[in-house]
Amino acid sequence: MNVNYNRYVSLMRKISDINGSMAVLSWDQEVYMPAKGAEIRAQQVATLSGIAHELFVGNEVGDLLELLSKDDSLDVHQKKNISETLYDYTRRKKYSTEFVMKLSECTSQAFQAWSKAKNTSDFSLFAPHLKKVVQLKREECELLGYESHPYNALLDLYERGAKVADLDILFNDVKSQLLPFIKQIAEQPKIDSAFLFKHYDKDKQWAFGIDCLKQMNYDFESGRQDISSHPFTISFNPNDVRVTTRVNENDFREMIWSCIHEGGHALYEQGLKIENYGLPSGEAISLGIHESQSRLWENNVGRSLAYWKCNYPQLQTIFPDHFGKVSLADFYRAINMVEPSFIRTSADELTYHFHVMIRYEIEKSLIEGSIEVEDLPRIWNENYKKYLLIDVPSHKMGILQDVHWSHGGFGYFPTYSLGSFYAAQFFAKAKNHLPELEQMIEHGNFKPLLQWLRENIHQYGRFYTAEELCTKVTGEKLNFRHFMDYAKAKFSNIYNL
Amino acid sequence: MNVNYNRYVSLMRKISDINGSMAVLSWDQEVYMPAKGAEIRAQQVATLSGIAHELFVGNEVGDLLELLSKDDSLDVHQKKNISETLYDYTRRKKYSTEFVMKLSECTSQAFQAWSKAKNTSDFSLFAPHLKKVVQLKREECELLGYESHPYNALLDLYERGAKVADLDILFNDVKSQLLPFIKQIAEQPKIDSAFLFKHYDKDKQWAFGIDCLKQMNYDFESGRQDISSHPFTISFNPNDVRVTTRVNENDFREMIWSCIHEGGHALYEQGLKIENYGLPSGEAISLGIHESQSRLWENNVGRSLAYWKCNYPQLQTIFPDHFGKVSLADFYRAINMVEPSFIRTSADELTYHFHVMIRYEIEKSLIEGSIEVEDLPRIWNENYKKYLLIDVPSHKMGILQDVHWSHGGFGYFPTYSLGSFYAAQFFAKAKNHLPELEQMIEHGNFKPLLQWLRENIHQYGRFYTAEELCTKVTGEKLNFRHFMDYAKAKFSNIYNL
Repeated sequence: MNVNYNRYVSLMRKISDINGSMAVLSWDQEVYMPAKGAEIRAQQVATLSGIAHELFVGNEVGDLLELLSKDDSLDVHQKKNISETLYDYTRRKKYSTEFVMKLSECTSQAFQAWSKAKNTSDFSLFAPHLKKVVQLKREECELLGYESHPYNALLDLYERGAKVADLDILFNDVKSQLLPFIKQIAEQPKIDSAFLFKHYDKDKQWAFGIDCLKQMNYDFESGRQDISSHPFTISFNPNDVRVTTRVNENDFREMIWSCIHEGGHALYEQGLKIENYGLPSGEAISLGIHESQSRLWENNVGRSLAYWKCNYPQLQTIFPDHFGKVSLADFYRAINMVEPSFIRTSADELTYHFHVMIRYEIEKSLIEGSIEVEDLPRIWNENYKKYLLIDVPSHKMGILQDVHWSHGGFGYFPTYSLGSFYAAQFFAKAKNHLPELEQMIEHGNFKPLLQWLRENIHQYGRFYTAEELCTKVTGEKLNFRHFMDYAKAKFSNIYNL
Repeated sequence: MNVNYNRYVSLMRKISDINGSMAVLSWDQEVYMPAKGAEIRAQQVATLSGIAHELFVGNEVGDLLELLSKDDSLDVHQKKNISETLYDYTRRKKYSTEFVMKLSECTSQAFQAWSKAKNTSDFSLFAPHLKKVVQLKREECELLGYESHPYNALLDLYERGAKVADLDILFNDVKSQLLPFIKQIAEQPKIDSAFLFKHYDKDKQWAFGIDCLKQMNYDFESGRQDISSHPFTISFNPNDVRVTTRVNENDFREMIWSCIHEGGHALYEQGLKIENYGLPSGEAISLGIHESQSRLWENNVGRSLAYWKCNYPQLQTIFPDHFGKVSLADFYRAINMVEPSFIRTSADELTYHFHVMIRYEIEKSLIEGSIEVEDLPRIWNENYKKYLLIDVPSHKMGILQDVHWSHGGFGYFPTYSLGSFYAAQFFAKAKNHLPELEQMIEHGNFKPLLQWLRENIHQYGRFYTAEELCTKVTGEKLNFRHFMDYAKAKFSNIYNL
């Protein structure tokens, strides 16, 4: 029994209790809170956020970390927890309580403004709030410190170790390898997907989405699904991990794949060990690795032929008028149709990365100060024209579509693309380890895949960094080749290339 | 600008933010939390509760209160806030951490024992735990201090200023005036209410309940209704006051009047002034006054002929098979049927007060030590025979029916009757001030009544005590006569006496 280590654990858990409470407040805010509750909710969140911050950067934690960093009696897991907490602590010490509360209050109001702005497609309602958020984010970069580029400081918050220099190379690969492939696809005959955009009853969609989550082995005794304007996953602890979705009655695709996507996130959180609650070993590594879990389920599994060999018959039973006369092959081609579009969350697997790239470049420029909030609608629309070859019809369908900036989440978007690339690399290895994986999926048996993810990824929490884990599991560092190989094999087949 | 007073306000609001957050956690726990979330949720609540307690009894609050108590520059409202907070502070300081933990542990075990005891109808499982709770409650009386009777110390926790001497007078009135009246009613022909117990569709009931809340001017932009196993009202602040209900498809009465009842509580909370958030002037006076608001809407309004003259036609449209051939007069008689029964929560308006009286007398005797826990089943059953003229068939339907004692809630029950008596007295005065009130209700116009309650009761928070407020509004102290007048007029008519 190490008294100091035990005290450290109990302090970390106290802080997690507060953070988990804040997560409940956030969840409620996005799914059930009445409109007028917003103002004091922002105060409540700011208060809890301040208390958690003060506890974490307080002398007791600092003193314990100093003692425990030199304590050779700790085992390797305990040492890792201490070094990870020390890393977090050092970073957090850079924030004043005042700054934390200011940011929390500002983003809570920005979120409300964004909601209204999006509903009315009126960017001017959001702009003044966004300006404040951007200003605070620029301050945050200075406060955190960085090498080479201020945006690196923000990238590090979501994907530790990610750098502008590396992402620039990566998105250049996207441009040089993926863009020509997409152009090749664009020359092929158009796939008929009109049947996906008929009217799909809300309740039937909802029930099918719940079934998909159950099939993935998402544990409904440790979670639930609700409706929100933007789907998300939120964890209060591994025994209470909630997902949300939205239903579009005129686009069959939206709800199903958001269910599977959020389900993938949730399986990661439910797979963290409850005995590590409050400790780094009980937390997800990074957003990129998190996104690898959602993308793997959404795309590598949920848009595969094997998945629909298993589930299409049920879908035909639920929607006989829609799918009764559509063959599995045609359905599979339609759900994998590659076509530039306005909305990131409903983009296909390939053009998706251009949505991310555009946001990445805007964020980088905003943070370095080479553009300002006023310029965004113009720059957004120009880039959609340049890379996706489309004219954005409204701000609702354009610059206002994502919630992230209202939350201050600059540096977040690139992790979506990283996620897909990690997913491709992990899935290739999983297939390698489980040669029958495709047949298992065809039979609706997802337990071996989940078991593989639990054993190789989920269980470790932050015991390894993203790079270490990737190397441990796949034998090599993150590599764009796996995504490109996957994309070429799948879409060459679909488009007869 | 008084620096100390401002600092006091900001500390009180910080504590309210934490308490409001705990309320969100409780609400979620009762309505949406998945089963496995319970364990860490309990930890989260304990953590927040500890933080709020430490803040409140901390030196900063104590020092500020000492300074501000002597500060003559404060206005009358500020002085009242300080004296009320000082009262709360002084009371809280009387509890040692050791006592709080002992009570918490004891009641936690007692609650579990009570659950089992109730399920098996076996009082002996609960008795040893209840003995410990009673012992701790007796200690609590000594620790808090009291005049005349130890039970006064506990009454004060829920209804400040309530005294055994006054309650004895009230419940003697109940015995001497209400009992003969109920016996007179019992001699009349039985009312036919069988149609209330047919099958009533859940969704239709729900929709009607929402309409009732809207009609009362419950603000759905500052609240919402959900389903829970026991109906309750919970306030996070006046702009977010939520109600819950439950639907019994085989008893039409349950959902409708729980909606109206909780709606009455919620209107009080929504009527507190947001600018007094966190301060005593922004808090409800007492449980008795709170209950007066729910009872006034539930009974004086919601079980009146005028109310159903307004709403019965809609009900007949929604449930034509059930009510199509039932006249308004028969419906009104059925929902007001007086009949002794075992369960307090489903008792009619009149016999209800004997349920409360029996509990009050048991609690008083237990706390003063003139009876012991072993005697309870016998005393309970004897009293139900004596006052309600029924033989209790099992402890589950008798002494074990309520959760309150397992939580240590001695002193709570009397506030239920006080609520009804205050309601009658307030409602008589409201009729006096609004001579057209009955016609307004018939026309579904509840705004003048709500406005009257807002002006005369809600807006003041704790600025007045219950007794002061009652005298201010009605010109006299709480008086059983108003309830008896109301009961006689209404039920003499219903029973043709």
